[in-house]
Amino acid sequence: MPDLDPEEFRRLGHALVDWVAAHRAGLAELPVRPAVQPGEVRAALPADLPDKPADDLGAALTGLLDDVVVPGSLHWQHPGFYGYFPAQASLLSLLGDLASGGLGAQGMLWSTSPAGTEVEQVLVDGFARALGLGEGFTFAGGGGGSLQDSASSAALVALLAALHRASPEWRETGVEGTERVYVTAETHSSLAKAVRVAGLGARALRTVPFAPGTRAMSAEALAAMLADDRAAGLRPVLVCPTVGTTGTGAIDPVRQVCEVSGDAWVHVDAAWAGVAALCPEFRHVLDGAELADSVCTDAHKWLATAFDASFLWVRDGTALPAALSITPEYLRNAASESGEVVDYRDWQVPLGRRFRALKLWSVVQGAGLEGLRDGIRGHVALARDLADRVAAHPRFALAAPPSLALVCLHVLGPDGEPDDAAGRALLERVNAGGRAYLTHTTVDGRHAIRVAVGALGTGPEHLDVLWAELTR
Amino acid sequence: MPDLDPEEFRRLGHALVDWVAAHRAGLAELPVRPAVQPGEVRAALPADLPDKPADDLGAALTGLLDDVVVPGSLHWQHPGFYGYFPAQASLLSLLGDLASGGLGAQGMLWSTSPAGTEVEQVLVDGFARALGLGEGFTFAGGGGGSLQDSASSAALVALLAALHRASPEWRETGVEGTERVYVTAETHSSLAKAVRVAGLGARALRTVPFAPGTRAMSAEALAAMLADDRAAGLRPVLVCPTVGTTGTGAIDPVRQVCEVSGDAWVHVDAAWAGVAALCPEFRHVLDGAELADSVCTDAHKWLATAFDASFLWVRDGTALPAALSITPEYLRNAASESGEVVDYRDWQVPLGRRFRALKLWSVVQGAGLEGLRDGIRGHVALARDLADRVAAHPRFALAAPPSLALVCLHVLGPDGEPDDAAGRALLERVNAGGRAYLTHTTVDGRHAIRVAVGALGTGPEHLDVLWAELTR
Repeated sequence: MPDLDPEEFRRLGHALVDWVAAHRAGLAELPVRPAVQPGEVRAALPADLPDKPADDLGAALTGLLDDVVVPGSLHWQHPGFYGYFPAQASLLSLLGDLASGGLGAQGMLWSTSPAGTEVEQVLVDGFARALGLGEGFTFAGGGGGSLQDSASSAALVALLAALHRASPEWRETGVEGTERVYVTAETHSSLAKAVRVAGLGARALRTVPFAPGTRAMSAEALAAMLADDRAAGLRPVLVCPTVGTTGTGAIDPVRQVCEVSGDAWVHVDAAWAGVAALCPEFRHVLDGAELADSVCTDAHKWLATAFDASFLWVRDGTALPAALSITPEYLRNAASESGEVVDYRDWQVPLGRRFRALKLWSVVQGAGLEGLRDGIRGHVALARDLADRVAAHPRFALAAPPSLALVCLHVLGPDGEPDDAAGRALLERVNAGGRAYLTHTTVDGRHAIRVAVGALGTGPEHLDVLWAELTR
Repeated sequence: MPDLDPEEFRRLGHALVDWVAAHRAGLAELPVRPAVQPGEVRAALPADLPDKPADDLGAALTGLLDDVVVPGSLHWQHPGFYGYFPAQASLLSLLGDLASGGLGAQGMLWSTSPAGTEVEQVLVDGFARALGLGEGFTFAGGGGGSLQDSASSAALVALLAALHRASPEWRETGVEGTERVYVTAETHSSLAKAVRVAGLGARALRTVPFAPGTRAMSAEALAAMLADDRAAGLRPVLVCPTVGTTGTGAIDPVRQVCEVSGDAWVHVDAAWAGVAALCPEFRHVLDGAELADSVCTDAHKWLATAFDASFLWVRDGTALPAALSITPEYLRNAASESGEVVDYRDWQVPLGRRFRALKLWSVVQGAGLEGLRDGIRGHVALARDLADRVAAHPRFALAAPPSLALVCLHVLGPDGEPDDAAGRALLERVNAGGRAYLTHTTVDGRHAIRVAVGALGTGPEHLDVLWAELTR
């Protein structure tokens, strides 16, 4: 198969590294949001694939990047990016990911990548301890963790493990139709998607009310719904409290939820906010998670790791393999049969598996836990400063209490009430300006601008720019 | 958030590129299979994560790689790797993947990465044409393609689209329990896994017999099973013919399967072998696929692209979004609502999405389609040569007809019959020797050694080494 020889790779690899370095160095000067219309990128590319190799591959690649890709990209790594949640693709993590590609390992079984499996085990055990989740989620403690591709996939496999625990015959006969899953109106759509994928249908999704005056799950209401549903012959299989909802960053009361959930599986979706528990002063966000059955938080959002790398820990390390394992002859091997190893294919839907742990390893070695804590603290401090400015401004109001590094605000009309049209217009004006990028949600049916502080390089000077844009 | 500054990244990135180049240059000298016991890698690593950054990050990373990872890895990129199926992580593809990490894009929506979305659309359209799948699988032709993480995930979403097409109320009420899915005993276990994940249970999986004297699905038997099941009130939702089974490389008769499947969704799993259709002389392997509802083939197996990159085309470009889309307020945007764009989150389970197309782009630009065809032809020629040697050797027999670059062989006892114990012993002896790596399957209940030719650098000299090891 044709490929670069190592010397050519050295030359072109250096050139690409230099391109990435220059791109990141100049990123703050680019507009965050591209001025590109649907179809424009496609129109700029040849429709047919080339029969012959490019005469100058380096120029072909950097040409595509400079001429088509960069002008056609929303720049998630820009210090003015406040949309959705951050997706910190640190340069540190790229080093480990490059090594992963160089190794070209397939980690489906321990035997197909012993190092890929065990480096991951050590890392997820270490992070379970560093986040205060307790020994129960480590392999040594009978649990275990893995790096999934996304919190969506983590929620799906947690649900599958829950279905299996609720009825072992699920593997043979499938779902029954009486299973129920408990969320709130702020729970991420990935839970609704998992419920759909798992064959339960939307009718299985039960929306638990908020506790009065909050956007967090009411454990009392949950307890009542669980009791009612059980009495009606339905089977509560999974409850999903969220730590840091996508809408407003609300934090469900995990401890109380665990205490009332009985035999339903509790999956804590802390995709964005869970990593904050690295800092002792924010550890409370995961309070009670040690009682849950599974916990997810993303390294690829706010922990400096390029997509994809989502932690999923389970308190019963046998639960996912029990639910998911299927072993044809060609995957049988002595190590698996010894029972002494973890085969991560049984923790996920895909069979194939990249050596994801290396990029996280390089982040931890390069930043240290203290560096990561400092980064999180810095973003939270910036968000608190922004929230103070919002609260003090006559045309803005906080749409919800600021949560860690997320601030949601209403734009007010002259009557002091949220003005949805003005909010939409302001959002579009800021985004069109290219110096900052924001997204939105609704809070109690009213438009709210979300400011998710957390791009790698965002500092006070960028918040000042954002504030100037918002108040211009 | 702490990170390398671009100049540090330049220095360390060059060093990592050099490490990868040196690793690949020296790979053939390493044993393919590591001499490592369960727990040995874990024991070599500190249990606790460091609070402080490493003094010398470059040394920390290359030290981990050299001292722990390389000695603890099965080397899938080694020219003596013949296990499972290949996983060609070409150096070409690493260039594009590095750029992808540098951009740090999130391609969940068109609006979150217009370039990421449209470069992918152009590539998958181009490959649909280059493989002879016809315009029906291109976006212009009303279909469309995507790069999934794996053939397993592709099979799952194809099944979900099939369930939705069979009963639109599936989104609301879930599966019914009467749905059936048709495979053979050689179909990849990912189909059984998809059936389990989708909530159907193993009872939904119907195993169609082989056509007499083959290991390929009997279209006649399929037609009869479909008729019987429909008559019994069951609902055939998906039929999965395989092009190149994992066991022996068998090729199911896709055209006939499509002709008898009626309203059941036909998903062609050509994960390994489909890319061979780039060569006119092997295009027949996808004969009839233009009639199917979906087709999958992996770029990350035999098309020089680092994991993960699995093509999935569907003939109805609206089918996956119709089955999978769920839109909370925070994902709403003008481009999506215009209907003029593709939002790839609706083609997969995860929400987040890496810019995978760049690694494939760099492969195509670097090798050209002609280069890829030459690589495939070369591997097929090597396998044919090996099959001839096997057929001529008194202690070996072909366990199944050689298929493209896959050869399966029995080790014979003195009586001329397959000797399972001798086969196992030979496999272990070859693998322990470190110069080649093989895996196994069973054919008609008898042990068979699989030789999957297809590592990037495998040439005639490596086949000679393998032959010497087999016959030693």
